[in-house]
Amino acid sequence: MSGNSINLADKLATFSEHWSPRIVAEFNGHDVMVVKVQGEFNWHSHADTDDLFLVLQGEITIRLRDGEVHLGAGEMFVVPRGVEHCPVAKDEAHVLLIEPAGTPNTGDAATAVTKPSI
Amino acid sequence: MSGNSINLADKLATFSEHWSPRIVAEFNGHDVMVVKVQGEFNWHSHADTDDLFLVLQGEITIRLRDGEVHLGAGEMFVVPRGVEHCPVAKDEAHVLLIEPAGTPNTGDAATAVTKPSI
Repeated sequence: MSGNSINLADKLATFSEHWSPRIVAEFNGHDVMVVKVQGEFNWHSHADTDDLFLVLQGEITIRLRDGEVHLGAGEMFVVPRGVEHCPVAKDEAHVLLIEPAGTPNTGDAATAVTKPSI
Repeated sequence: MSGNSINLADKLATFSEHWSPRIVAEFNGHDVMVVKVQGEFNWHSHADTDDLFLVLQGEITIRLRDGEVHLGAGEMFVVPRGVEHCPVAKDEAHVLLIEPAGTPNTGDAATAVTKPSI
């Protein structure tokens, strides 16, 4: 097989919506996604999967019930499965996410956005 | 639970060896690793897992049997399971890798390095 590199900044430049992840690659049954975030998301947890956040640009805070984790560019955090969290960003930030394919971003299929491939 | 951010540059500053991945986080049974690379690795494949490369600094080339993929900082590529590949880097580059815990980096347990957590 041959293949093409995936430029994350180029992928991020193709959309502007916040909290709407785009799938850029598949990896062992997981979706590798990029997302633009700003403001406050909802409190949620994923019963069956850890949640990997890697900040590419800007800063985010992941609120936890007993504290919070601040992440700048080049910093990552894994929210363990079952742990409630609420991501927030004062200014727009760009984040790489990895979750099993089909994971609802809100932790609840009823409120989740679809995650198209780009 | 509370937790700490993982600063990838800080983790990379703690070692200098090439082709010797360090584990910085665990995620759904996978190791998230950082590695410094320079020169040519060996041709290998992983029968049971895809291989995710995300370049953090510098440039690498992933040689494939029928082509090659060039990656600069902020670019990624997933080598599908079973596909032979040979990573090379003219100058030192820093890379984020994700593989299932215990995956031998050379595709062969007999020649693999151990991957300590840092």
